[in-house]
Amino acid sequence: MEKPIVGIIMGSDSDLNIMKDAAEVLEEFGVPYELTIVSAHRTPERMFEYARTAHARGIEVIIAGAGGAAHLPGMTASITPLPVIGVPIKSSSLEGLDSLLSIVQMPKGVPVATVAINNAKNAGLLAVSILSVKYPELREKLIKYKEDMRRDVIKKAQDLEDMGYAEYLKSKESKE
Amino acid sequence: MEKPIVGIIMGSDSDLNIMKDAAEVLEEFGVPYELTIVSAHRTPERMFEYARTAHARGIEVIIAGAGGAAHLPGMTASITPLPVIGVPIKSSSLEGLDSLLSIVQMPKGVPVATVAINNAKNAGLLAVSILSVKYPELREKLIKYKEDMRRDVIKKAQDLEDMGYAEYLKSKESKE
Amino acid sequence: MEKPIVGIIMGSDSDLNIMKDAAEVLEEFGVPYELTIVSAHRTPERMFEYARTAHARGIEVIIAGAGGAAHLPGMTASITPLPVIGVPIKSSSLEGLDSLLSIVQMPKGVPVATVAINNAKNAGLLAVSILSVKYPELREKLIKYKEDMRRDVIKKAQDLEDMGYAEYLKSKESKE
Amino acid sequence: MEKPIVGIIMGSDSDLNIMKDAAEVLEEFGVPYELTIVSAHRTPERMFEYARTAHARGIEVIIAGAGGAAHLPGMTASITPLPVIGVPIKSSSLEGLDSLLSIVQMPKGVPVATVAINNAKNAGLLAVSILSVKYPELREKLIKYKEDMRRDVIKKAQDLEDMGYAEYLKSKESKE
Amino acid sequence: MEKPIVGIIMGSDSDLNIMKDAAEVLEEFGVPYELTIVSAHRTPERMFEYARTAHARGIEVIIAGAGGAAHLPGMTASITPLPVIGVPIKSSSLEGLDSLLSIVQMPKGVPVATVAINNAKNAGLLAVSILSVKYPELREKLIKYKEDMRRDVIKKAQDLEDMGYAEYLKSKESKE
Amino acid sequence: MEKPIVGIIMGSDSDLNIMKDAAEVLEEFGVPYELTIVSAHRTPERMFEYARTAHARGIEVIIAGAGGAAHLPGMTASITPLPVIGVPIKSSSLEGLDSLLSIVQMPKGVPVATVAINNAKNAGLLAVSILSVKYPELREKLIKYKEDMRRDVIKKAQDLEDMGYAEYLKSKESKE
Amino acid sequence: MEKPIVGIIMGSDSDLNIMKDAAEVLEEFGVPYELTIVSAHRTPERMFEYARTAHARGIEVIIAGAGGAAHLPGMTASITPLPVIGVPIKSSSLEGLDSLLSIVQMPKGVPVATVAINNAKNAGLLAVSILSVKYPELREKLIKYKEDMRRDVIKKAQDLEDMGYAEYLKSKESKE
Amino acid sequence: MEKPIVGIIMGSDSDLNIMKDAAEVLEEFGVPYELTIVSAHRTPERMFEYARTAHARGIEVIIAGAGGAAHLPGMTASITPLPVIGVPIKSSSLEGLDSLLSIVQMPKGVPVATVAINNAKNAGLLAVSILSVKYPELREKLIKYKEDMRRDVIKKAQDLEDMGYAEYLKSKESKE
Repeated sequence: MEKPIVGIIMGSDSDLNIMKDAAEVLEEFGVPYELTIVSAHRTPERMFEYARTAHARGIEVIIAGAGGAAHLPGMTASITPLPVIGVPIKSSSLEGLDSLLSIVQMPKGVPVATVAINNAKNAGLLAVSILSVKYPELREKLIKYKEDMRRDVIKKAQDLEDMGYAEYLKSKESKE
Repeated sequence: MEKPIVGIIMGSDSDLNIMKDAAEVLEEFGVPYELTIVSAHRTPERMFEYARTAHARGIEVIIAGAGGAAHLPGMTASITPLPVIGVPIKSSSLEGLDSLLSIVQMPKGVPVATVAINNAKNAGLLAVSILSVKYPELREKLIKYKEDMRRDVIKKAQDLEDMGYAEYLKSKESKE
Repeated sequence: MEKPIVGIIMGSDSDLNIMKDAAEVLEEFGVPYELTIVSAHRTPERMFEYARTAHARGIEVIIAGAGGAAHLPGMTASITPLPVIGVPIKSSSLEGLDSLLSIVQMPKGVPVATVAINNAKNAGLLAVSILSVKYPELREKLIKYKEDMRRDVIKKAQDLEDMGYAEYLKSKESKE
Repeated sequence: MEKPIVGIIMGSDSDLNIMKDAAEVLEEFGVPYELTIVSAHRTPERMFEYARTAHARGIEVIIAGAGGAAHLPGMTASITPLPVIGVPIKSSSLEGLDSLLSIVQMPKGVPVATVAINNAKNAGLLAVSILSVKYPELREKLIKYKEDMRRDVIKKAQDLEDMGYAEYLKSKESKE
Repeated sequence: MEKPIVGIIMGSDSDLNIMKDAAEVLEEFGVPYELTIVSAHRTPERMFEYARTAHARGIEVIIAGAGGAAHLPGMTASITPLPVIGVPIKSSSLEGLDSLLSIVQMPKGVPVATVAINNAKNAGLLAVSILSVKYPELREKLIKYKEDMRRDVIKKAQDLEDMGYAEYLKSKESKE
Repeated sequence: MEKPIVGIIMGSDSDLNIMKDAAEVLEEFGVPYELTIVSAHRTPERMFEYARTAHARGIEVIIAGAGGAAHLPGMTASITPLPVIGVPIKSSSLEGLDSLLSIVQMPKGVPVATVAINNAKNAGLLAVSILSVKYPELREKLIKYKEDMRRDVIKKAQDLEDMGYAEYLKSKESKE
Repeated sequence: MEKPIVGIIMGSDSDLNIMKDAAEVLEEFGVPYELTIVSAHRTPERMFEYARTAHARGIEVIIAGAGGAAHLPGMTASITPLPVIGVPIKSSSLEGLDSLLSIVQMPKGVPVATVAINNAKNAGLLAVSILSVKYPELREKLIKYKEDMRRDVIKKAQDLEDMGYAEYLKSKESKE
Repeated sequence: MEKPIVGIIMGSDSDLNIMKDAAEVLEEFGVPYELTIVSAHRTPERMFEYARTAHARGIEVIIAGAGGAAHLPGMTASITPLPVIGVPIKSSSLEGLDSLLSIVQMPKGVPVATVAINNAKNAGLLAVSILSVKYPELREKLIKYKEDMRRDVIKKAQDLEDMGYAEYLKSKESKE
């Protein structure tokens, strides 16, 4: 694998089932990344070290996921000059509202680029679009990605219009 | 002033109007304290340093106030072995809910003793009650404090019963 | 068992599955505790008696868990001079928001040290950290506890980096 | 004044500006009442005493107002066999949601008859309607009260229809 | 069955599983009641008729349960002079918050005595306590009911203290 | 004035300052309307009568505004076969959330076409667009209205681009 | 099938299970409709095209369902002169509150007729009631529909009163 | 001015007082930008055109601010391959929660980099940090910016420690 330019970090391995979606997107776009566990609360020095050195190691964008009183994205952003993307992980209470607010509501001076609750896929896509500022081939891929999404919707719309909703729902179920 | 045993820290000097209430309570109980600005997001190293060394400097309880995506209390708690009391400061949106959730919803392993939104006075009182575990004279003072509160309520209740609500409200207004 | 210095109380035996986490932490730290049911609403006199006499019986910290319109922690705090830790128990509606707000939003004069929703483990840890103000050996244990947490995260991070996320997730599943 | 049959209590004299509305309604209906300050958190014994003895003193309904982590209505209800009406007082954060939830979300076994945030007037009316179960003359007055409200609305509707909204708003302003 | 003095109504038969708890309490206290479906939105005339005539038929308290944009309790209260108890039924979204707010937030002039979300049992108990203003034997029963609750808690507390939490939880499971 | 085809009703004359915006839109489009006060809670019979007879009197759309536990739009919709547009009026607590939820969360069978909190102007525009299904000249006017909005934005955008934001803000202030 | 006069669109085929309820209502009322997938975010041009041409193709009302940051209803409304009904689809977090707010809180100038979360049935009924302004036979059907709902409730109420709640619940279960 | 590489757009000129903060940051960092009004709802074609052509015109990052049902950031992101930063503008109700949720909760495939409510300054900083991936001199400036923030906090902390809080607050007031 090439030298990673995106760092994906998460507060706990229980976030991995969500955060792997970011990794999958980066693989799909051919963006080399690293992925590990960095806990703001259980390994604060590690977090400091990670955030302080990431850009020198060649990382260009950091994706950080955390839940509850989610401090990893904001603390990382306070230390690194790199853009930091925050993924609020839905925890066992409050429907993810705590995770969202403690990531997005950063004070003046230290932004976190927050995506939707549990939406690590979008974190991956946002990283690609940020990198595309520098790497034109990624912009081409993004344009193609959007085109594929469009085509996929239109294919489904066509099927639905052809079949009617009753048959469409049946055929969908049988595929599952 | 004696060597401080409580450290009061806040993310910004705009929190001082709220956080001074904690200082005033500690003065009232004769508990030596220090008070300064430590921003998790704008001075992360300072925060680390503060949290890492506080107990060695003789601090026994830390009170930390912050607003919005409020990370100061939780990050301090992740580094120090001291009990950390968190004061959610109401910021300009969301009525303080963001501050509250990003302080109280800490993950397993790193508690923050959270008090009510903007209630730095209670943070001071909680610090006193924590210290009273070690310093019996503080417990005596706390018992007296509760007794004074009780007497104050009863005095007001008596006045209200004597005057009736209309006159009581008038007399209250004229005092203001 | 030694004479208890922490009192764990809860409003109903349906809270026990959550509240036992506090007991387990105290056992782990070798802190003697007592655990019982005290309902603010169904046994108010018992609650009064408990709160009024706890410190005289040698209790030094009280942990109180309750759900819904959760009055046990705040009422206990209004009576005892001891520090009271409140655990909001998630009830069947509103995702625990009612429990949290009715515990944390205490008025000036009577603080409750509130932890995260359902996080009785943190209540236990907060009790230990409060007691560590008085008992230096607990501070040593807390420092070691944090070190163990750190090591545990780093071990998992190493495994994840070694295996990659796909294999890590598989190996995790197979352990469950 | 006759022997009071309604007890109006509130946690602090800062609630009096709201809670007096309950008193005014009772005066309007000729229901004798008493009104005083009883703080669940600052005078817990007084609250106990009040709640334990109210019915023996001839009180038939209790109206209790409180804000924030509002425990007065629920704790009173846990002690007295009388119906307790709770008035959530809007406090300085969270738009009164904390007050509402900590009054209304009572566990099985101990109801509080909760009215709208800051709506002490409705607490008074609810007390009258509860008392009307026993005192038929109050039911007559309630029916007349509703009739007066109806007539008042119809008078305003007629004025509005006659004047048109522009003139109506002007005439309303000039009355203020 | 005697002539009913409590009317239990609900917006839909899907609310019956919750609302039957009110009926069971009334049976336990020997209070004759009637129970039926009255939909504010699907049978508005029936609701009007019910509310307009209830007191003349001898009903003394109305319990009304509804979910979502829950208008049945408030509309009933706008028509009848009787005290109306509202039970917010948790619907499929928003955790019951919509039901709660559309029942409790009544405007000045028309109170609804609101209980906790899905807590029809408390609606039954509140009805009993309202009726106890008129019927002294119900007050006696309520005092005994509270005493039974108290004893039940104390019995469980005793068992828990005797067994310890581990064995208690096991014995509880085996009973289920 | 021609025979009204839109009925604007509101629960209280305190809603008039908001609800007049609907009237102004209708005037602008030349749609004859009537406007009056109909309170679900204080004049339930009047509301019934209004809703039951509106379509026979030639009304084709009803706009209903109310705040708090806002029942007027939903109850009106339960009685009339006409489309009912609901305007949630922000009341003194909870930022209008109570008004919104008690209008929009209607059960299956009885829809209310809900617009944004306090947005009576949009209620007027929605009424026009509903009527445009029948009256083609209104569709023409709506298309022109959208075109005017577009042109107004573009004019402002042009000014802003020409002046720069600093001068634009100054010139805006001086106009006020 | 006749030329459709209602267009039902949704952001994704995962919304179909909810949105089909709108189609079923329209079938029940004999209103010709079309149903397809139009994603604001994945097929923006398609959305534009759909919204721009719908009225010229004979569509008279549009029903649009979407979840999360739900932009389809509002964007459609910004382009078409037709009335647009928005259905907030409950997504995997936040209980549908995000969907509701991003549909209903439209700015001045562009209303969306919002119905309850997941309540596509009501969207269908609202479309019928809007069309009934033009098509008198639909008004007749709506009046009959309301009458059928009424009769259905009364039948259930009668059964419940006859059987008592215990037997009614049993007979209901056995039917399922 | 050089050719702009950041596009700042907002839904209305009433957002300008907030959004100008983004412009000021970009000026401070010497990043050429353009700023204009683009309304998703009142000028949808203009928005399409803007989003479709921005990257071809040399724009590399888009900052979009909007309030209420805020669709501008998400719709722009659905069309452009550029990274889009969303600024939720607090509107007159709901404390900005509606704006936040309708910007951040984007579905899979189309991310918006959301910052805190009303925090356009952070949007500017996030744009700089994104651009710094490509332009190394911006990274240097960002590192210096963070260092300046740090120094500013430390200066204030030193003053506060020197003066004590009482004098500090007085001196702050006198500066205002």
